[in-house]
Parts: sequence; C-alpha cells; structure tokens
Amino acid sequence: MVGLGQCCWDQVGLVEQWPHPDAKTELLASCEQAGGPVATALVTLARLGVRTAFFGAVGGDEAGRLIRWSLVAEGVDCRLLQVDPEGESQRAWVIADRTTGKRNIFWKRGARRPFHLTDETAELIAAAKVLLLDDLDFDAALAAARAAREAGVTTVLDGGSLRPRTAELLPLIDHLVVSEKFARQWTGRPEPPAALEPLAAFGGTVTVTAGAEGCWSLLAGEVIHQPAFGVDVIDTTGCGDVFHGGYVFGLLQAWPLPAVLAFASACAALKARGLGGQAAIAGLDETLRFLARETGDIRWTTLRITE
Amino acid sequence: MVGLGQCCWDQVGLVEQWPHPDAKTELLASCEQAGGPVATALVTLARLGVRTAFFGAVGGDEAGRLIRWSLVAEGVDCRLLQVDPEGESQRAWVIADRTTGKRNIFWKRGARRPFHLTDETAELIAAAKVLLLDDLDFDAALAAARAAREAGVTTVLDGGSLRPRTAELLPLIDHLVVSEKFARQWTGRPEPPAALEPLAAFGGTVTVTAGAEGCWSLLAGEVIHQPAFGVDVIDTTGCGDVFHGGYVFGLLQAWPLPAVLAFASACAALKARGLGGQAAIAGLDETLRFLARETGDIRWTTLRITE
Repeated sequence: MVGLGQCCWDQVGLVEQWPHPDAKTELLASCEQAGGPVATALVTLARLGVRTAFFGAVGGDEAGRLIRWSLVAEGVDCRLLQVDPEGESQRAWVIADRTTGKRNIFWKRGARRPFHLTDETAELIAAAKVLLLDDLDFDAALAAARAAREAGVTTVLDGGSLRPRTAELLPLIDHLVVSEKFARQWTGRPEPPAALEPLAAFGGTVTVTAGAEGCWSLLAGEVIHQPAFGVDVIDTTGCGDVFHGGYVFGLLQAWPLPAVLAFASACAALKARGLGGQAAIAGLDETLRFLARETGDIRWTTLRITE
Repeated sequence: MVGLGQCCWDQVGLVEQWPHPDAKTELLASCEQAGGPVATALVTLARLGVRTAFFGAVGGDEAGRLIRWSLVAEGVDCRLLQVDPEGESQRAWVIADRTTGKRNIFWKRGARRPFHLTDETAELIAAAKVLLLDDLDFDAALAAARAAREAGVTTVLDGGSLRPRTAELLPLIDHLVVSEKFARQWTGRPEPPAALEPLAAFGGTVTVTAGAEGCWSLLAGEVIHQPAFGVDVIDTTGCGDVFHGGYVFGLLQAWPLPAVLAFASACAALKARGLGGQAAIAGLDETLRFLARETGDIRWTTLRITE
C-alpha cells in the first residue's frame, strides 16, 4: 500500500500533570522520533508486515534526515520522498500528560516545496491496493486520489481537522476515517454517532474516532461502536494515526468492518503504552494475541494473514 | 563579574492562544537559542558592556555545543565551562502565548556530571566584583558562595523555586532576588509585598519579581515597588533572568536600590519585545534611552557608566 501526506520530526516530553499557564515544568522523560499522521500509519503497517511506500516531502535539514532514516529503518520505502535542499521539515513538540493520558501537540509546518505528483509516484499508486492520504498538501492529495480512483485503488482519507478544500477531495474517497474534531467541524454535531449520517452523505464508509471513547461507524445504515481497549496509558500521541494503519491493514485483509475497527482499536491501544507516536507500535502477533485476550475470541490468534 | 548556574538550549514556539488539553496547535513562529537563568543574565550583562565569565556544565551533545558557541558569540568567557563528553545538556521547550504574554517552560535537566568548583574557578570568583548564582547544582553553588564571601565578593542568588537546601545558602548571600513563586513557597504569603519582611530575615537585600506586576523590595524597612514598564509584549521567556542581569549591572554601578530596580525592570521589559529568552536583550544605550523616555528623567541618558 502507499501513503501520501505528512511526516514530521517529533520531540515528546512527559509531564506529571498539565501545568497552569506561566509555569516551569520539569519533564519526567523525553524522546525524539518520527511522527506525522500518514508516516505513523505506514510505520504501523510496516510493523504488521505490510509492504509500504511513503510519498511526502522533507527539507534538507537535520530533521529531514532523521525522518528519512527513521522511516527507512522501519522498512518503509522512501525512494520517492521529495527533499527540498533549502527547505525546512515539519516538526512538532508534544507534551504528554501522565495523569490524563492526553497530549498537546505544537507543530510547525516547515517551509519546504510541497510534494508534487510525478509519473513514478502515479504509477506506484496505480499498482497499490490502498492509498492512504491526508490533505495538507492539497494539490498532491487531489492528484493522487484521482490517479487511485482511475486505477480502481481503494482510497482512505485521514481527516484530522477540516481544511478549506477537503470537500473537493471527498468524491474520490472510499473510506473516510476522521477525528471527532473533523466530524464536529463538518457537521456541527458534537456527538460522533450523530455526525455519522451527515458525513456518510459523501458516499463511502465513514468512521469517527474519539480517543478513549472508542470509534463509531455506519454499517448498512446502522451505527456501530467499537469501545477503546484498556491499557496502562503512558501517552496517546499518534494513537489516531496508528488506528489508520490498523484500519488499512483490515481493508487489505478484506475483513468485515467490525473486525477492521476492532483490529485498528487494538493497534491504537497498544501504542499508548509508550512515549512518542511510534515507539510502542506492536507487530502482528502481539496485536492478535492482545485481541484474542481482550475479546475472548480465540479466532484472532488463528487467523491466516494473507498479506 | 562571574555567574555560576544553569545554561540550557531552548526551543521556543509562539501560539496565538494557549490551547485546551488534547489539542494540535500550529506554531505562528519558532526559534532556538541559548537560555537558562544565569546564562541569560550573563548575556544581558555582556550586551550592557560588562566583562563576564560563566561557570556551568554541559554535555558533549549538539545542545552543549550550541550553548557554548552562543555564549562565546555574546562575548561571555566560557573557558571554564565544564563539558561532560558522555553527558546530556539541559534543554527546554517553551510555548509563548501571544494573547496573554505568558509562557510555559518544559525543561529537562539533562544527565551530566554536575559542575564542580576548581582552584581556577575559585580564583576567578575571588577576583570578581559580583557572583550571580542559582542553586540547581547545590554543592558547587555552596562552595562558590563560600569562596565569594571569603574574598568579600558581593553575592546575588537567583531563586526561581525553593529547593530542599536553599536555606543553607542564604547566610552567604548579599542580594536575594527571587520569583513570586519562591517568595510564596518560602513564606506562605501569596502577596509579594507581604513576603518581603520574612524573606529579609536572612540578612541581606531582598527583591521579589512578579512579571507584569513589577517588583518589590525593602529599603531601610520600607516596601518599595517598581512597576513593570509597558512594551508590546511578544514573549516573556527569560524576562526574570534578564532582570537579574540588569540588577547586577546596577550593583556594579553602585546605584541606589530604586535605580537598580528601575534599570533591571527596563532590561526585562525590552527583552519581552522578541521571541525567546535572549534575542531581544538590549544594549546599554538603548536601555538608558528607554528609561529616560519612560520615566521622563533625562539623567538616565547622561549617566557616565564606570564599568
């Protein structure tokens, strides 16, 4: 599968408790790792054993080198990553609150030439089974979604927050997997289940993720809810991104939607055990064992994974 | 003068408004620069034209190199900076809120051998006019304060927050210049003016700084208040540290306390015009012109500075 979108260099710090403004807070722990929604989803898929290629752009700076090395080390194909030698990579500082499990992300887009679709990337998209994308570099996302649609490739859009031109992209999307915030911004309805129907008007499958409250989706007109699995939460940074990776994995297996959602939720929960968006992402065996234990359904561990 | 204490590598980001927890916030601007209370006070003094030497410790990492280069570029003597080749330097991430002018600092002590007093540092302390110190590396601070006291060198303690052994240090201190938070922790009195008398029991001159509310001090048993000067605030990171630099400058001039406080407040106010703890620190001419304009007292610009 291929992913097109954001990649980022994250510096993540853990605090005992979220401070009131104007404070000085000593970090309990900190780490640096690659991040960004699509890049993190691809790392998830790579750890699950899926062959992945990433399309995105970085600057010629240290952060860009670190992002690239880190993704390559995970086995993500980065040969078509675009490097703007004079540009600056996207970066983020994340403060994770040990008490609530919530995190605040402060990010900087970085000044770099946006990713542009080349013949080579379009060919790889056409040869893939699934394209996961976000819409930060909108023109590239639109071109990629068109290439995917022409070739009959399944498209999954990760919607974190509503952007000005998102609506133009929707007719090209098969699976819309969005945050609670996106759902609220798009529909004006604060409750994820109530947002499903207006969201589903775009024509594909729609899922709304809401952190510890789990996720909701529509199946044949019925609302289905997948609760979040309980783990000892250290940091929820990247859990939504990892969910997208697990979701795509489920699509590649052609599992029914409830199984896709359960699997994606398990991936996200396991990630929350570690500091940073990627460190604690689990492999396939661990995820399936976790699912069997949590759901009491032994069939998870006896699954034959075809890809 | 010499300073002994913290130095840090700061990454500073500006946000429109402090977010609620669990948000993703795009930075309006960001920068990296050296920071840390004593290091920033010394940069202030160096820009004011004072010869300064810094005693502290860094790791052999990139942050340590950046801290050293940055201080050396400001003209601060770093020949006795101690580098722990295997160690990690102190770092901080600062989020500055453009709407309120407040900032949140998340910092990481870094794992490095603490600074230890050598014969060479003790000699330089004995030859100085003023020693500014904090008490993060407590043993070094105590030894330095003793060396200063024996040699009759004026000592200034920057108290940011109360630490377990601060009380042991106080008999060796001539000027205690502390944050509102320190004053509250020490005395249990939330209002800075009410904290002055109990704080003054240690025997020297005491000043409590309280950001936009200005600072308070005791002069011959009377409370004096210096309001903060008004500027277009971008970021208040480091304003307290810069205040300490200005305060030491006033001591070196042997100015009366009210002039010391006015000058230090002007230094702090001018700093707030820029993002980061050090970028906007003003030189002497600019500070004196600002003071003359703000106070209406032309004598500030006609001062003959002796050091």
